[in-house]
Amino acid sequence: MASIPEITAKIRAFRDARDWAQFHNPKDMAIAISLESAELLEHFLWKNPEEVASRVTSHLDEITDEIADIAIYLTELADNLGIDLVQAMDAKLAKNEAKYPAEKVSGSSKKYTEYPEA
Amino acid sequence: MASIPEITAKIRAFRDARDWAQFHNPKDMAIAISLESAELLEHFLWKNPEEVASRVTSHLDEITDEIADIAIYLTELADNLGIDLVQAMDAKLAKNEAKYPAEKVSGSSKKYTEYPEA
Amino acid sequence: MASIPEITAKIRAFRDARDWAQFHNPKDMAIAISLESAELLEHFLWKNPEEVASRVTSHLDEITDEIADIAIYLTELADNLGIDLVQAMDAKLAKNEAKYPAEKVSGSSKKYTEYPEA
Amino acid sequence: MASIPEITAKIRAFRDARDWAQFHNPKDMAIAISLESAELLEHFLWKNPEEVASRVTSHLDEITDEIADIAIYLTELADNLGIDLVQAMDAKLAKNEAKYPAEKVSGSSKKYTEYPEA
Repeated sequence: MASIPEITAKIRAFRDARDWAQFHNPKDMAIAISLESAELLEHFLWKNPEEVASRVTSHLDEITDEIADIAIYLTELADNLGIDLVQAMDAKLAKNEAKYPAEKVSGSSKKYTEYPEA
Repeated sequence: MASIPEITAKIRAFRDARDWAQFHNPKDMAIAISLESAELLEHFLWKNPEEVASRVTSHLDEITDEIADIAIYLTELADNLGIDLVQAMDAKLAKNEAKYPAEKVSGSSKKYTEYPEA
Repeated sequence: MASIPEITAKIRAFRDARDWAQFHNPKDMAIAISLESAELLEHFLWKNPEEVASRVTSHLDEITDEIADIAIYLTELADNLGIDLVQAMDAKLAKNEAKYPAEKVSGSSKKYTEYPEA
Repeated sequence: MASIPEITAKIRAFRDARDWAQFHNPKDMAIAISLESAELLEHFLWKNPEEVASRVTSHLDEITDEIADIAIYLTELADNLGIDLVQAMDAKLAKNEAKYPAEKVSGSSKKYTEYPEA
């Protein structure tokens, strides 16, 4: 199991064996993605950098499952909408390159709207 | 551009050209994923099923970008933690198969804790 | 127990008896509010309008607790930042009145940026 | 303007003048609360403790509005469900007292399930 198309086919099969497509409209899929993101973030609530680093070791299995859950819903949603996920990531990275030129933003985490006009 | 390893290399290069790894600890990456999930979900606030279906057509480009943003952060986080994303999805699907046996849950959206004991 | 000042004092006392102010910086409080919001939203995942209406009856106690959790963190955060919560709500409602004039938006759920220029 | 009942009446009036109750079912209200929570959390993405402290000063007006937005939706949702918000907070604080006895948890941020059995 090594590719997005293969895992997407597995996700579709899992959903259809349970007749769950009826629930998987884009709005509920977006909610599901948000909820799984919260389960991931919950691991780090109240934690300082040292504790965060420790947590990703002590709870790596759970965190891996959380990440997988987000990825599964996201992959299915993209598939349902006819979006090529890797191509979309590639295109967005290109947009990000333009929004955040390396020579201008290096080392700064400001949002692009917070940069003074060139 | 067609594989996760290739896009992951691009994401790393983008981040390192800007010296942004210093900000990309797991806690902030999890926050970023949550925030991007909210941007996706925002498209569907107040909308009924017909309006949701219409929205994914009228705003497909924006929605594609939102999905790409989530995927980019998720891919980088998995890479930072040494997680093989597709393998993790595969393993989690197997766990889901056990939690939600097709013959038991077909057509029902209840969470596994809401099913009567077998 | 009937007022915000009284409940705020109780929240402060609860936090200080446990020496928890050290964790309650604005960033972690905002994360906590997001996580509790997700717990509330989880009740409605996959559910259609009839099922949503049924859920708020069958699970009213849990939903009440979820709402209380959000309110508790929000009240403490406002207090920590020296914000008068009710006054802030009042001011924001006034801003909303200007952004969404009743005669212009009645019956429509579009965001103000989606309205044609007057 | 100093009480929850007064601000609740204002919120109801604002909603009804625009005929918006039709959109304010519990599911969409919960989504709205999540989205506003994300807008609040966005202020602190990538920021270390010093930058967080600086942000709540430099952007206090925006952050106050974000907090007000969450509070407004939460207040209306509680009202719609017949929940007395302050009473619910009081009851939940009492439950929290039992879950996290001060003598046991003082100075520790662990979740109650992470404490060893007494």
